[in-house]
Amino acid sequence: MTRLWDKGAPLDERVLEFTAGEDYALDERLVAYDVRASIAHAGMLRDQNLLTAADFEALRSALEALADAHARGEWRITLADEDGQSALEQRLTERLGAVGGRIHLGRSRNDQVLTALRLYLKDVLGELEAGALRVAATLDALAARQGNVALPGYTHMQQAMPSSVTLWAGGFAAELRDDAEGLRSARRRVDKNPLGSAAGYGAPGLPLDREATSRALGFASTHQPVTAVQLARGKAESGVLFECTLLMQDLGRLAADVLLFYTQEFAFIEIPDAFTTGSSIMPQKRNPDVFELLRGRSAVALAALAEALALYAKLPSGYQRDLQLLKAPLFRGIDQALQSLDIAAAALAALVFRPERIRLDPALHAAEEAYALVLREGIPFRDAYRRIAERYKKQP
Amino acid sequence: MTRLWDKGAPLDERVLEFTAGEDYALDERLVAYDVRASIAHAGMLRDQNLLTAADFEALRSALEALADAHARGEWRITLADEDGQSALEQRLTERLGAVGGRIHLGRSRNDQVLTALRLYLKDVLGELEAGALRVAATLDALAARQGNVALPGYTHMQQAMPSSVTLWAGGFAAELRDDAEGLRSARRRVDKNPLGSAAGYGAPGLPLDREATSRALGFASTHQPVTAVQLARGKAESGVLFECTLLMQDLGRLAADVLLFYTQEFAFIEIPDAFTTGSSIMPQKRNPDVFELLRGRSAVALAALAEALALYAKLPSGYQRDLQLLKAPLFRGIDQALQSLDIAAAALAALVFRPERIRLDPALHAAEEAYALVLREGIPFRDAYRRIAERYKKQP
Amino acid sequence: MTRLWDKGAPLDERVLEFTAGEDYALDERLVAYDVRASIAHAGMLRDQNLLTAADFEALRSALEALADAHARGEWRITLADEDGQSALEQRLTERLGAVGGRIHLGRSRNDQVLTALRLYLKDVLGELEAGALRVAATLDALAARQGNVALPGYTHMQQAMPSSVTLWAGGFAAELRDDAEGLRSARRRVDKNPLGSAAGYGAPGLPLDREATSRALGFASTHQPVTAVQLARGKAESGVLFECTLLMQDLGRLAADVLLFYTQEFAFIEIPDAFTTGSSIMPQKRNPDVFELLRGRSAVALAALAEALALYAKLPSGYQRDLQLLKAPLFRGIDQALQSLDIAAAALAALVFRPERIRLDPALHAAEEAYALVLREGIPFRDAYRRIAERYKKQP
Amino acid sequence: MTRLWDKGAPLDERVLEFTAGEDYALDERLVAYDVRASIAHAGMLRDQNLLTAADFEALRSALEALADAHARGEWRITLADEDGQSALEQRLTERLGAVGGRIHLGRSRNDQVLTALRLYLKDVLGELEAGALRVAATLDALAARQGNVALPGYTHMQQAMPSSVTLWAGGFAAELRDDAEGLRSARRRVDKNPLGSAAGYGAPGLPLDREATSRALGFASTHQPVTAVQLARGKAESGVLFECTLLMQDLGRLAADVLLFYTQEFAFIEIPDAFTTGSSIMPQKRNPDVFELLRGRSAVALAALAEALALYAKLPSGYQRDLQLLKAPLFRGIDQALQSLDIAAAALAALVFRPERIRLDPALHAAEEAYALVLREGIPFRDAYRRIAERYKKQP
Repeated sequence: MTRLWDKGAPLDERVLEFTAGEDYALDERLVAYDVRASIAHAGMLRDQNLLTAADFEALRSALEALADAHARGEWRITLADEDGQSALEQRLTERLGAVGGRIHLGRSRNDQVLTALRLYLKDVLGELEAGALRVAATLDALAARQGNVALPGYTHMQQAMPSSVTLWAGGFAAELRDDAEGLRSARRRVDKNPLGSAAGYGAPGLPLDREATSRALGFASTHQPVTAVQLARGKAESGVLFECTLLMQDLGRLAADVLLFYTQEFAFIEIPDAFTTGSSIMPQKRNPDVFELLRGRSAVALAALAEALALYAKLPSGYQRDLQLLKAPLFRGIDQALQSLDIAAAALAALVFRPERIRLDPALHAAEEAYALVLREGIPFRDAYRRIAERYKKQP
Repeated sequence: MTRLWDKGAPLDERVLEFTAGEDYALDERLVAYDVRASIAHAGMLRDQNLLTAADFEALRSALEALADAHARGEWRITLADEDGQSALEQRLTERLGAVGGRIHLGRSRNDQVLTALRLYLKDVLGELEAGALRVAATLDALAARQGNVALPGYTHMQQAMPSSVTLWAGGFAAELRDDAEGLRSARRRVDKNPLGSAAGYGAPGLPLDREATSRALGFASTHQPVTAVQLARGKAESGVLFECTLLMQDLGRLAADVLLFYTQEFAFIEIPDAFTTGSSIMPQKRNPDVFELLRGRSAVALAALAEALALYAKLPSGYQRDLQLLKAPLFRGIDQALQSLDIAAAALAALVFRPERIRLDPALHAAEEAYALVLREGIPFRDAYRRIAERYKKQP
Repeated sequence: MTRLWDKGAPLDERVLEFTAGEDYALDERLVAYDVRASIAHAGMLRDQNLLTAADFEALRSALEALADAHARGEWRITLADEDGQSALEQRLTERLGAVGGRIHLGRSRNDQVLTALRLYLKDVLGELEAGALRVAATLDALAARQGNVALPGYTHMQQAMPSSVTLWAGGFAAELRDDAEGLRSARRRVDKNPLGSAAGYGAPGLPLDREATSRALGFASTHQPVTAVQLARGKAESGVLFECTLLMQDLGRLAADVLLFYTQEFAFIEIPDAFTTGSSIMPQKRNPDVFELLRGRSAVALAALAEALALYAKLPSGYQRDLQLLKAPLFRGIDQALQSLDIAAAALAALVFRPERIRLDPALHAAEEAYALVLREGIPFRDAYRRIAERYKKQP
Repeated sequence: MTRLWDKGAPLDERVLEFTAGEDYALDERLVAYDVRASIAHAGMLRDQNLLTAADFEALRSALEALADAHARGEWRITLADEDGQSALEQRLTERLGAVGGRIHLGRSRNDQVLTALRLYLKDVLGELEAGALRVAATLDALAARQGNVALPGYTHMQQAMPSSVTLWAGGFAAELRDDAEGLRSARRRVDKNPLGSAAGYGAPGLPLDREATSRALGFASTHQPVTAVQLARGKAESGVLFECTLLMQDLGRLAADVLLFYTQEFAFIEIPDAFTTGSSIMPQKRNPDVFELLRGRSAVALAALAEALALYAKLPSGYQRDLQLLKAPLFRGIDQALQSLDIAAAALAALVFRPERIRLDPALHAAEEAYALVLREGIPFRDAYRRIAERYKKQP
């Protein structure tokens, strides 16, 4: 099989491996979206009289057949395909002959892959948001079950003020809902139709109708001008990864609390066996690996974000091949966030607080006592503070 | 002078320096906001009958006097103050005696500083947004002046398609407007009133009215529940820094183009002397330092974001002193973004394209020729592509 | 098949997938090293009379058979194995029955995997070093072929001083040799034997001889005390990734130069077709993707380093499951550095400078002229500088 | 006052502020080193007959006087000076007239500042190393005082195996010594003399003797070829920051342990009042801020490293003004590491373990029991593990 841009020159196999990299595997998840976008593109070409109705029908039905076959696992993108975009055109041409060569009119692999990617991101942002809301709901359910259990409220990791499971779970639930809202707002940079920007400079001489594909594909707007499209590469991706990072860091902090509460010294909670693992040498161990990994994965998210930002930093405008490397950290960051949300919801549903083990320092109420003194005696807070401080100072 | 929490124990001077760090200097920009928030807090205390009308008036007028004096440079926060929040209460008490000790009822330095910080961030986000829009407008003006100048459109840093100053400037202007919109949306995480969350667990026994201070200070909502406030530390800050990073990376890419266009080999543009600097040994040099530093400062932004994210990562819930360190990268990131926007607008206003020096590769029109062939002969694009490719292949 | 630490409780399949993650696949490259370390461990057990000579022989020959079979692709670690360490013991026990259960005496999976990892790292650091030296040699060869070609020496991307291909290639070659030396020095943190530290607290009651395994495995020292071993997790890995990052950033800067020199505007060099790729819509394009990807991959290296550092940051001492996640960025960083060195050497060997296209600004010699003036007239350099500056100022 | 490279054109004040930035303040610490390097440079010029003995003496004594006056605080670099290198030449010329203009022969501000920086780094690496060793010695002293106190050894934050203060402190001491060794090895990239590389292309026509200044300044080698010097910018700096990061992360993990041990729930240790701070509303609090900030500052170190690496990433070769921005993260990272080492040594010296509060889980000895079973009955470890596991399983 020859590559689309083959010029007859022998291409060093190592060069192909280096340049195609893992792209062909990463593009797998984009095939269905590429098919959708390709059909919208072809429909627009037909409406602009750049494609006959018959050719459009042939392309549409072949594209749908390819999508179905791909969904059934009947074909995969291979290294020899180089990327998913070429794979699709190749297979179209195998099925339809010359008509397959009509699909690429007025588009480039640059806007083709970006369209598929953004359609995918719109879907996956919805999944991430739903996942975050599910974890928040699990925390609500925990509060409903055991909300009245009294907890110390910590500052500086020291018992500080009275708290409760309701307040503890509610704080995290609120922030997870904040993350969900952040993920929803990350859609803004994604929801712009790049199709028709071609290689970044449009398709001179062709009467493309970019608004038509925006409508057909449900994009909120058409990304304008065409030169902005490649300048935006990395920004929408980083936006998604940034929100994933905030989300993962919230899960990481939640995990840090659980790990603390699960120590023998705190012993505030139980984690069912299904969520613990054992040791190869210490038969007694029940380890909270799930929560350790939730904590650890916040670092994975952070690094994926750093990678995306660094990839496009300082690049001159116009498409640069470096941008291809964005997909790896993007998909890595998304996948692990989805997995983490899934496991976090399951693990938190199984968490049980042990009120009988929770010891509250009586000094937790010192601020409250000072407040009461103010209310009772009308003295300034600072004076009440000093009197209560004196009382606690005398205690050992 | 004694610190608010002084327990009579000798405090090692190095400990103070280590813990207060540069905090006292960083808090300078928050004084006016702290005063606004303190007045709102005192007003709420009065309305809740926790403060007499007379005491409120005394506090309000002393606070306003302190703010004015601070604005006139008559006092500064010192290391001995430890932080801006303590500095204010100290000075209130110096002026008002015991009444000064009434201001801290129902709040903690935790929610006090956070309220001032968020009020500051709301303002500064507006400034950043305006700055980004100003640079975009400067690019529009450039397009108005020289938009018709033909430019090569590059992909892979190779001449690829026909472009123009309109398209070049328009792409960056669009992305800067996208950054402005991003900065506006970063306001969401900032616009939640933390006041009344005190140390993170509310003020048990006190009838605070958090909604009242939200209204008085113009916050979009009250941050609920109280435990969410400290969990959110780092998130709003990172959100601001993330949008600053996207902005700075856009300026960095713009600078990369300008630096390329300014090489003797490209020679597409002139930069007036006011924006170039000289060399200490090469008398002929006119160096584009401003644009190099715009490019370089994208790294500063990225690192400030990384610092903020890393600071709060993995922390157990509840206030932790690590969070105090957030201000340094936050202010660093904001300040340099503001400076960069200012200088970028000025420098871009002075940029002049030199159409006589811009050489366009005739092959820029190859795609267009292939399109024309499709329109003329009705052949598939892929066939047209191959015919045009053959033509260019024969040329040396 | 049951896991080593199976307690009879049903283990949620998703938990296994979440906790084992991609570990089983990542451990593939460690199997041969694990076998070597396991044989050394068993030999030490025999010498300490903790294993009979017959059992040792049985274990040794089964381990070697397993390594050979693995090298031939006859078995792979599966998700059900959970990790490579368990996979090995499982298969030993399948082959040997109860004797297989003797291998784990006095070790834990913690020190087992770390020993295998460090043996692997020692090897791969050698490969990386050799790769860097190979690229440096390629640059030497380029200098030998075309060293006399005059080049402008740039500062601020402006022609500044006279340079040459010898100086250009020599600068990069020197820094690549510096990277090679850095990679050699990264060995220090790797070359400490963790075996016998077990789960991080040694094997109380067992007469292990840690020095013996250090000798048998060729480690420079024994990592002491046992508690240091888990505290060091992430440090050696980060050290390797840091040197990979410096190396990749040097390659990235080299690529940036090549991409600049390859523009039509500079046109200083030719890249043979084997190292360029085409466009799907612009038939005339010959794109320098290999160099763009070398530039882009410096971001991948940087992020792998950030991930490793963030993973172990702030963790309480003692093994934490988060540390398992170190392998992914470590192997990613190493693999792409090896690939990049390989392709960089090939691509640079094919690079040809085009002296006929290199235009030198006469002002390049301004500093030299000022120097000559000093030598000739004995005037202070600063005066000479001003006179030459005057001369160049008069020119347009 | 006029700048060295002033061309008579009006220079926008904002441009100066943007380009000089905080450079002038950052250069303060380099003045003494710049003087040393300038004297060495002048001495070499004299030996090469590029400067008379009388002029050399005049320059030397004026330079020394300037250094002394600077050390006494009699002058500071100002924004109008632009940078420390210009400040020195200006002041030399004010004192000596035309002779001051002779010092810059054969050097550029590029190699001038880099030489001063590397001399500074050599000194400060020594300080950092000494600081790390001092903390290690403090941990040794702690082990000497309370080494026999039994501690649980944790894995997964769960009590796992028997440990002790000796093992706990010894692990950290070993890793701090490893950091000290890392800091020593970071000297390699610093210890190369850049002087004589001028703007990065040497001083054509001038008979400079670079080896002579290497000897005079005590550099291990001369950085060769001249083009390597600017390519190395950022690498030595990153090397120092990388080792600071490993060091700070070790301190951060140590702090994480202390913070855990200091909770009321663990209550393993006492921190004297001098190292705790109070709360503005909770009179009873004694907060371990010093250790929280040690933990937090590991993030500052990490970000300084990220900034340095990102600053020079992807830059074309030859000096670029972006490189000037390296000093800020470099000094930030170094300063806070020095402060942290200082305070860590003081705080750890004051730490007291409370053996009466440390509760050891009897199951800590499960692995030891399994080992004993193996020794007693000669059964395979895996069988012993299963029998002991059965025993612990029966317990609730």
